Amino acid sequence: MYNSVKDSVLNEIINPLTIDDFLKSYWPKKPLVSNGDPNRFDVIPGFDQIKNLNDILEIYNNPVMVVGNAVVEESGGIMDRLLVPSNEALQWYEKGAALEFDFTDLFIPRSRRWIESLKSDLRLPEGTLSKVIVYAAKNGGGFKAHFDAYTNFIFQIKGEKIWKLYENHNVENPTLHYDLAEAPYYPEELKKYWTGEPPAEDLPDADVVKLTPGSMLYLPRGVWHSTKSDEETLAINITFGQPTWLDLLLSEMRSRLVSNNKWRELALNYNSLNNEEKNKVFKDIDSMLSLLRKEVEKITPGDLLKHQSGDFDPYQSTQLVFRQLLTRY
Amino acid sequence: MYNSVKDSVLNEIINPLTIDDFLKSYWPKKPLVSNGDPNRFDVIPGFDQIKNLNDILEIYNNPVMVVGNAVVEESGGIMDRLLVPSNEALQWYEKGAALEFDFTDLFIPRSRRWIESLKSDLRLPEGTLSKVIVYAAKNGGGFKAHFDAYTNFIFQIKGEKIWKLYENHNVENPTLHYDLAEAPYYPEELKKYWTGEPPAEDLPDADVVKLTPGSMLYLPRGVWHSTKSDEETLAINITFGQPTWLDLLLSEMRSRLVSNNKWRELALNYNSLNNEEKNKVFKDIDSMLSLLRKEVEKITPGDLLKHQSGDFDPYQSTQLVFRQLLTRY
Repeated sequence: MYNSVKDSVLNEIINPLTIDDFLKSYWPKKPLVSNGDPNRFDVIPGFDQIKNLNDILEIYNNPVMVVGNAVVEESGGIMDRLLVPSNEALQWYEKGAALEFDFTDLFIPRSRRWIESLKSDLRLPEGTLSKVIVYAAKNGGGFKAHFDAYTNFIFQIKGEKIWKLYENHNVENPTLHYDLAEAPYYPEELKKYWTGEPPAEDLPDADVVKLTPGSMLYLPRGVWHSTKSDEETLAINITFGQPTWLDLLLSEMRSRLVSNNKWRELALNYNSLNNEEKNKVFKDIDSMLSLLRKEVEKITPGDLLKHQSGDFDPYQSTQLVFRQLLTRY
Repeated sequence: MYNSVKDSVLNEIINPLTIDDFLKSYWPKKPLVSNGDPNRFDVIPGFDQIKNLNDILEIYNNPVMVVGNAVVEESGGIMDRLLVPSNEALQWYEKGAALEFDFTDLFIPRSRRWIESLKSDLRLPEGTLSKVIVYAAKNGGGFKAHFDAYTNFIFQIKGEKIWKLYENHNVENPTLHYDLAEAPYYPEELKKYWTGEPPAEDLPDADVVKLTPGSMLYLPRGVWHSTKSDEETLAINITFGQPTWLDLLLSEMRSRLVSNNKWRELALNYNSLNNEEKNKVFKDIDSMLSLLRKEVEKITPGDLLKHQSGDFDPYQSTQLVFRQLLTRY
């Protein structure tokens, strides 16, 4: 059904599987664990530079996210995560906090071409977010059950980590991250397509997978997962956004409607309107909605596809720019 | 036409004008300069704490944006702005860089209620971004001609600054910031509603306004402006987002369509599709677009208005969260 990709950069990692096998049988829904020699990860430019905590601390010139009980205690229970200067990260690590080095690709720029190449092999739209995150924990590192709206390729570099993976029976193709501990509270958007009861907090029916140095885990968006470890661990993630057809449609809608000055006008607070004004506002919007309906008639599939280079993730692109401005090269 | 607001927090600042005068004759399109005793700004909780550079340096526990030639020189011409630790801001200031203390309201939390009260008086949707920015420059501070997609209330605390203000004949209700120096390059979205030739770089037909300590300038979105000063200046901005009816509509569209799993499916890179697959994708999208048209028929003005508490500005809300995570209280 698709053009086969013969020389994917992923081939050496998932061998004896090929990228064609991967696209047919796993991507974008089914997890894959591929075990092997840790040195095969060195085909990814820059990964040879990151073998232990000191390596990443040396190159990462940006605030480091520290997560866990050490932060909860220090903040008097207010928060479980903080961004700290990179030269303070080690002392948090020693206190037991897990360290997240987000956008590590800023500091191994030669990894970018490999990642963009993988993005293309995975047939992701050109504007799809891609980045590298390094995770390090001294002991007891781990995350409670949750699912992500992103997809991750996880490269275990150091130590063993136990992963629980459990198929999501509540939502398909989620557009949001969700922590199981939040149940029964659900964000408005998630409520729109959530069905049934959430699983028990310890994911009793999950597949249990042990990642050891040299393991690569492909984690699709939406799969429930939790992690646990009792030893020093280091893992490198390659994260990809998962732009939806809805993202492309909303880009097209915006692009069509923004040329109309009426749609660009300042919106009013509904509660501030008296009856007379409410009538006028409703009448105005009614006529804008009529124009909208005519505009929507004209949208074609090709219109959606031409937005594939757009920025679908201002949350990530804003963080990237902020971190670039914080960086001394 | 609207319910009159009698006891606005703004009244003491713009006296002898009242908030009713302001809403009738200025907001949201026409600039206003109001001169008076600088001490009247002290009605804004927290503003009494910020009288000079040392005051803001003492409370602002977050990276500071430094802007200008000093940065251009230091970076070898690569960038004109950087985020630096607050304890390095003073040395950049001495080198001539302008300092921007974004989201200063994080450090004067008691200002929040006053600002939210003003937001309500201005009849802005509840989800509208609001924040405080402090600007400081030793000399030669100033920005070249540009316009913003936000609106600002600017409180001149220290020093004199010359502002040029020039009505925008190229775009009405802009949704983007634009630097005149970028012309004739225009971002795609701006092209959709840009007309005519841009003004000359020095805005020769602009109104020239001198702000002195105690001046308050209301700067609507879209007005071309540039600033210049030869002395030490300090100003405090209160910034409001300008959510459009389009923002509300796209929230409603997203909310209606996201429940359909087809729209949440992973989009494909157009260039990776062979002919057979292209046909299938086009057919799928065609049937999704048919459903969309039926859905759009159902949208009412009331549907739009109920999104007024949404987050219309992930660019700002992401920065806010990032800065909160960087803060030690």
